[in-house]
Amino acid sequence: MSTLSLHGYYRSSTSYRVRIALALKGLEAEQVPINLLKEEVRGDAYLALNPQGLVPTLIVVDDDSPEGSLPGVVTQSLAIMEYLEERWPTPALLPDDPLARAHVRSLCLFMACEMHPLNAPRVLKYLTGEIGVDEAQKLAWYRHWVAEGFSRLEILLTASAGRFCVGDTPGMADACLMPQIHNARRFECDLSAYPCILRIEAACQQEEAFRLAHPSQQADAPHQ
Amino acid sequence: MSTLSLHGYYRSSTSYRVRIALALKGLEAEQVPINLLKEEVRGDAYLALNPQGLVPTLIVVDDDSPEGSLPGVVTQSLAIMEYLEERWPTPALLPDDPLARAHVRSLCLFMACEMHPLNAPRVLKYLTGEIGVDEAQKLAWYRHWVAEGFSRLEILLTASAGRFCVGDTPGMADACLMPQIHNARRFECDLSAYPCILRIEAACQQEEAFRLAHPSQQADAPHQ
Repeated sequence: MSTLSLHGYYRSSTSYRVRIALALKGLEAEQVPINLLKEEVRGDAYLALNPQGLVPTLIVVDDDSPEGSLPGVVTQSLAIMEYLEERWPTPALLPDDPLARAHVRSLCLFMACEMHPLNAPRVLKYLTGEIGVDEAQKLAWYRHWVAEGFSRLEILLTASAGRFCVGDTPGMADACLMPQIHNARRFECDLSAYPCILRIEAACQQEEAFRLAHPSQQADAPHQ
Repeated sequence: MSTLSLHGYYRSSTSYRVRIALALKGLEAEQVPINLLKEEVRGDAYLALNPQGLVPTLIVVDDDSPEGSLPGVVTQSLAIMEYLEERWPTPALLPDDPLARAHVRSLCLFMACEMHPLNAPRVLKYLTGEIGVDEAQKLAWYRHWVAEGFSRLEILLTASAGRFCVGDTPGMADACLMPQIHNARRFECDLSAYPCILRIEAACQQEEAFRLAHPSQQADAPHQ
């Protein structure tokens, strides 16, 4: 047996990815809220745990590990999902075939490397603080990268999607897609040009795992 | 037997990562130059191959695949490296232990998600073109994200490095690190505050695989 805890933030899209993956695998993890608005990720206590200064961080305590051994610490959402896949292979979040696995990973990395980083809070903060862009320019920046990413993604998914991003069972790519959609909606981006993405969103919304992992369902989400 | 070809660009750091991984595994791949300055990645022919519109793209033709079957197409540098690792496991670019694998992947993803995207050419182009930042602001942006990333990385690597990023054999994290260093030097970033990173760079420079993969050694590099 292992005891898992996830340090994250309710509306951090990388935390949200991992919550989906945990829920799809039926794994319980204690949620430890790290308030990004209060810069808790840059506090000494958190940096000692995760020197990257980012959420999420997964802590793994194995009951059969020797007494006095340190808990396992896993950082970076895609590395956490790969770790979960290796330790708890069923249900699988990646297909079996090497080329198909590479395709799912490529979709995940496209979202994680080409879409998410450009609109991260610390980047928007640099734009407004150091460069002095106004609210309209910030919003244009945000929506530009959403449109760039989603238009490419729509083409990719149209070629590979079944009911979900790849095939008919939800997996790692869906765990990355739903948080990107959630972010885009927060910034009121027009998603009507992406029917395949919207169809996958509707399919994910019907799954218990995605509902449990949703930002609005987390203990640190503000009350409505 | 398989025939590999890599569509890339000599100084694209993501292409450079994959060249290092191929060389570490002793795999031959035909290099197909895609000129990023001429926007060849956004041409119809290339987009038909890789709808992400990015380099690199690995093409895999297996001699034993049924006649008429399509070649394998793998995109996103980290997905390509994982694919190479699954198809040609020796020499390994990831350690065996799940937590150690997660640590290497986390280092790779830190570079691929938190460092590289913010200073990609298309981002610098948006900053100068759409937002109208001047040369000094562009350089400050570039160096800010290099310093942010390298200072965190120095802490992470100081904790895990042997002769290379993790242990005493070169692997996936080193294949990501060397291109980041190369980029930082192109933009004349001061790296003197990162002795552990510089020590790993020196170790990599002594390896044939890293020399073969270097941008200056590619057919599409400009003659000196």
